[in-house]
Amino acid sequence: MTETSLTNRIDLRSDTVTLPSPGMRMAMAEAPVGDDQYGEDPSINRLQERIAEMLGKEAALFMPSGTMANQTGLKLLTRPGDDVIVGDEAHVVWHESGAAAANSGVQFTVVGRGGLFTADEFRAAYKAPGHAIFPPTTLVTVENTHNRGGGVVFPQADAIAICAAARQLGVSSYLDGARLFNAAAATGRPLAELAAPFDLVSVALSKGLGCPAGSLIVGGSADIKRAVRVRRMFGGAMRQAGILAAAGLHALDHNLTRLPEDHANARVFADRLLGVSGVRLDIQTVQTNIVVFQLEDDAPDASRVVERAKERGVLVAAFGARTVRVATHLNVGRGQCERAAEILAAAIERG
Amino acid sequence: MTETSLTNRIDLRSDTVTLPSPGMRMAMAEAPVGDDQYGEDPSINRLQERIAEMLGKEAALFMPSGTMANQTGLKLLTRPGDDVIVGDEAHVVWHESGAAAANSGVQFTVVGRGGLFTADEFRAAYKAPGHAIFPPTTLVTVENTHNRGGGVVFPQADAIAICAAARQLGVSSYLDGARLFNAAAATGRPLAELAAPFDLVSVALSKGLGCPAGSLIVGGSADIKRAVRVRRMFGGAMRQAGILAAAGLHALDHNLTRLPEDHANARVFADRLLGVSGVRLDIQTVQTNIVVFQLEDDAPDASRVVERAKERGVLVAAFGARTVRVATHLNVGRGQCERAAEILAAAIERG
Amino acid sequence: MTETSLTNRIDLRSDTVTLPSPGMRMAMAEAPVGDDQYGEDPSINRLQERIAEMLGKEAALFMPSGTMANQTGLKLLTRPGDDVIVGDEAHVVWHESGAAAANSGVQFTVVGRGGLFTADEFRAAYKAPGHAIFPPTTLVTVENTHNRGGGVVFPQADAIAICAAARQLGVSSYLDGARLFNAAAATGRPLAELAAPFDLVSVALSKGLGCPAGSLIVGGSADIKRAVRVRRMFGGAMRQAGILAAAGLHALDHNLTRLPEDHANARVFADRLLGVSGVRLDIQTVQTNIVVFQLEDDAPDASRVVERAKERGVLVAAFGARTVRVATHLNVGRGQCERAAEILAAAIERG
Amino acid sequence: MTETSLTNRIDLRSDTVTLPSPGMRMAMAEAPVGDDQYGEDPSINRLQERIAEMLGKEAALFMPSGTMANQTGLKLLTRPGDDVIVGDEAHVVWHESGAAAANSGVQFTVVGRGGLFTADEFRAAYKAPGHAIFPPTTLVTVENTHNRGGGVVFPQADAIAICAAARQLGVSSYLDGARLFNAAAATGRPLAELAAPFDLVSVALSKGLGCPAGSLIVGGSADIKRAVRVRRMFGGAMRQAGILAAAGLHALDHNLTRLPEDHANARVFADRLLGVSGVRLDIQTVQTNIVVFQLEDDAPDASRVVERAKERGVLVAAFGARTVRVATHLNVGRGQCERAAEILAAAIERG
Repeated sequence: MTETSLTNRIDLRSDTVTLPSPGMRMAMAEAPVGDDQYGEDPSINRLQERIAEMLGKEAALFMPSGTMANQTGLKLLTRPGDDVIVGDEAHVVWHESGAAAANSGVQFTVVGRGGLFTADEFRAAYKAPGHAIFPPTTLVTVENTHNRGGGVVFPQADAIAICAAARQLGVSSYLDGARLFNAAAATGRPLAELAAPFDLVSVALSKGLGCPAGSLIVGGSADIKRAVRVRRMFGGAMRQAGILAAAGLHALDHNLTRLPEDHANARVFADRLLGVSGVRLDIQTVQTNIVVFQLEDDAPDASRVVERAKERGVLVAAFGARTVRVATHLNVGRGQCERAAEILAAAIERG
Repeated sequence: MTETSLTNRIDLRSDTVTLPSPGMRMAMAEAPVGDDQYGEDPSINRLQERIAEMLGKEAALFMPSGTMANQTGLKLLTRPGDDVIVGDEAHVVWHESGAAAANSGVQFTVVGRGGLFTADEFRAAYKAPGHAIFPPTTLVTVENTHNRGGGVVFPQADAIAICAAARQLGVSSYLDGARLFNAAAATGRPLAELAAPFDLVSVALSKGLGCPAGSLIVGGSADIKRAVRVRRMFGGAMRQAGILAAAGLHALDHNLTRLPEDHANARVFADRLLGVSGVRLDIQTVQTNIVVFQLEDDAPDASRVVERAKERGVLVAAFGARTVRVATHLNVGRGQCERAAEILAAAIERG
Repeated sequence: MTETSLTNRIDLRSDTVTLPSPGMRMAMAEAPVGDDQYGEDPSINRLQERIAEMLGKEAALFMPSGTMANQTGLKLLTRPGDDVIVGDEAHVVWHESGAAAANSGVQFTVVGRGGLFTADEFRAAYKAPGHAIFPPTTLVTVENTHNRGGGVVFPQADAIAICAAARQLGVSSYLDGARLFNAAAATGRPLAELAAPFDLVSVALSKGLGCPAGSLIVGGSADIKRAVRVRRMFGGAMRQAGILAAAGLHALDHNLTRLPEDHANARVFADRLLGVSGVRLDIQTVQTNIVVFQLEDDAPDASRVVERAKERGVLVAAFGARTVRVATHLNVGRGQCERAAEILAAAIERG
Repeated sequence: MTETSLTNRIDLRSDTVTLPSPGMRMAMAEAPVGDDQYGEDPSINRLQERIAEMLGKEAALFMPSGTMANQTGLKLLTRPGDDVIVGDEAHVVWHESGAAAANSGVQFTVVGRGGLFTADEFRAAYKAPGHAIFPPTTLVTVENTHNRGGGVVFPQADAIAICAAARQLGVSSYLDGARLFNAAAATGRPLAELAAPFDLVSVALSKGLGCPAGSLIVGGSADIKRAVRVRRMFGGAMRQAGILAAAGLHALDHNLTRLPEDHANARVFADRLLGVSGVRLDIQTVQTNIVVFQLEDDAPDASRVVERAKERGVLVAAFGARTVRVATHLNVGRGQCERAAEILAAAIERG
């Protein structure tokens, strides 16, 4: 389970590729568990209470994945035929395989740029219910940090203004916080402050925290009670899931405070790439553990860059024909990042 | 049923407001009918055959509305979770109340500008099936003429290139031809030529043709047979619907050739508005019976303009906070258009 | 449009096969109309007001078909994943091509026999919300008269008790009244009395009333306002639909009082069949214009009986492998019914 | 983690309440893992290959739960509006909270009794596609063993005949094998033989095998490839899920052969109940690890019996107002079953 077992490759494709540490494995092995469908799993219950408290909400529910947390949030806060306003490049639009329309029958209106948008943009896109022609807007969703936006933190002032406008219009709000721990680390704001404007919030254990699996959806007790049923309908209700929750509890104790390391490593990576010809990278977006950059027309395309880097032991992800993503995490140290940045730079420059 | 019975108001809100002429009423009164759910309505059958032939397709099916034709097309050519590429401002996105996601579970990817897009834009937006992350593209839809795009005709070369690219990628194609008769009249191209690139096509009877209701979905026999069931599931299967089909047959005989009059009237209207301060109007889009224009910041907003014009007997439609649509049709003559344009110009200029 | 134009065949397949009378055609030809999507069709408005008043409800909405009325009722009163309790052999279960699950995501629990059920059966099938395992019951639907149940009238005492139990449990109630006019005629109860227990009710114009098309959904103003949008999403929003509404208004004036004739004719038909060997017919169900009977093992099967009767000019419907339905209506007089019963009896007896 | 830690209660509510043994915990702690969304989790891969081989199919896919396996099977083998024929009391109908209609838009036709049905019953319920009225049958599902049917084994001859009839009619077949390991143990038939007639099959790890979580869906490679996307859309795609798979691999090695003990214990339990007044129990259904019985009118109702037994440390499940289920499993030995049966008998007899 060491990096060597990965045959020395440096895997920066995603912060989801992390392997559980020995301590985390021990925590799972010793976890008290029970049948969570009877509400009797003590590890699940502890994790849910702890996360709810950290986010300043009434209740939380464990989910197998961030996608299920997002799909549950969409389902709880909308009805089929509703319009959901969302920043461009959002995970729910791009990375959930069309599930929102299939599961909940909702239509997206995409606004803003780079994953960010303002209350004015929200208001301009809002379509009032009671109209028989336009799809009525009943939900606005924010993603923080924003994955395809390059790990950028959603400005808190905008989040507050958007949710205030939403509340005034009777529109619900959802925060896709798959990387909300990173946002908190980057801004120094408490999680509860970041979560406060929103009706429902998700957080993931399997990204920067390094757990094998699991996300939580967090909010008011009534919504979370309804979420139990939605999770059942999607098939996300497990039994002795405390095995996975124990990893989460361990990560909250041990991995939360080290996120700034990942952010610093991403910055090191980005700084190296800035000097590479053929790379278009907005350094302003490099605020957390993700670096997303474009390849100019004279550079090789993303699949070729990915392939060349892989040949030299560095794994990164193609996010589009000419877009590459790099994600740092707890299984990759500073030295590896520096080495990987060199290899990637070479892969691009040599064409 | 004359214009006077409308108390002298000039109604340019839509080309759907037309009243059936005495001849059309006579045709309906005398229509041979039967139970269409047994396939025994001779007027329905004649209309379906005639429209299929005009469009150069194997079969056609009568629908209560263009929305049902569109919703049926989407349902026939996709599965839940699929991605549908569509020009911006499309009727299926904006004017069907979120039905596509609710009825068929599909997600839209919006491309292009003013309702138009190219094969390159289609290809760039295409997401291949077989991927577990991105929603797979299985359908591309074109709207011709384009309502919110200002009645603009979709360039036939683009339609051909898009559908060729689609076919190559295994993507189906749908043409929302609610105003395809206008496109044919404006370009001189036969309907069959406009329809040829597409798998399925809709046409409407209740717009420029002046019928009370009805659209048809047109395509290959196998798809149209499946459309019979989809129509039933939506609740669009009627009995002696030949009453409505008879209006359609009458309109094909009498109202098709006069569409250029509506187009000329729209142009007259647009020319008058071009000189009005505070109006932003791309005259290039005024190709058929629709004029869509924007109100500049120093002009009154759309709802106010609509209200003022209405006080003086001219009805037009607000399409957004600062967007107005005017549609000409067979119940409004040249003189009325000139008068209405003066009244609207005054409503805008006086603020 | 006379019976002779039907080439002397006697068509008892359904009460939907009726042809509009000259008076009804005249009413359609002279109907004042407008664009119903702007709420401006005077004939539609008059019909909606009149039907709402007859049923003792606040509002009504015109629909292209009874199926759309039913699908709209289901959609308004449920959410996806809900359980709907319904009598066996219901139209919504059998004759709407699976639309309830496809359009609204609901699951049926079928109770009772012959289309009828009691409040006790409803209560026993009820599954409380708040449970994560069982689908929660949120709607009960009754069909009156019951088509596949042989045109039987739903006992009013049961309807009252079911809806009272439903209200107590927070369950909504819907009455599929496609043939509610027949139920009123058979029982002498006013329509408003039959409709009173239910939240939403549908009635059809295209069955016993002899109109070409159209149904209405009837209930509280708030629900009917929401129904406008649902109708739009299904594609049932038409323009100058007053043409069809005028037929409905005419039928209310002229065809309502003659329904007892159809009922008497059905009884004549049933009495003749009672004496036929191989026919199993519960004469208790023959309360209105429908006769549904089974063919015993020694009789020919339904498709053969239908075929033989057709050869002699009598059309009836196979409702299953060994089930036949006969429906009387205003285009078939007493003598024709007697003749048709003889022909059908012979078709069965000769094997 | 011992029985004492459960404060001496004997938990027979379900075979899902089992706690992982020390050996299983060790297997999880040492499991080689990777990111399963890149297909790189060796434990997941090994489990999938092993289960596919055991069932004689091409491929298998790990799922968080049996419900997700079932929901995925339904989605893969149907389209919205389709009819699914299923035995009465099925898990997909009763225990998945209406998910089938919500997720896949399908309608159930329930046939047979006690969870069992024959090819003749299937054929009688079949509704051919190509019809615009009836919902077309495209799938038949069997549950083996049948939970609400009392753990009864589905007769293999019937399974073979049903699937043969289905194939002839172009209908797909699905086996809900949440307790297929029990069926194999009870009949001595290899899993592959039980699975052979079906297109897709599920098996669960979290029932008799005693794992914390997980099911697999098993079938042809093309279907399983499509299942990857469906799982993603439901939110069931996890990362280092090999932690859970390792428990499954361990259970296949250690817990499979001991299932007959659970079956014998259930039989002991049932034999004791047979002599209790007020209990209606068909001993023929007690073939595996489940005992379902009814309480007669003179006995207390299920919730009271459950409550009384609980006061004395025995947990059983109310399956309806007068129905109780008992499930044996690896955390309950023979002596405990005998003691629990005594306590339950007393709880019923004392009223």
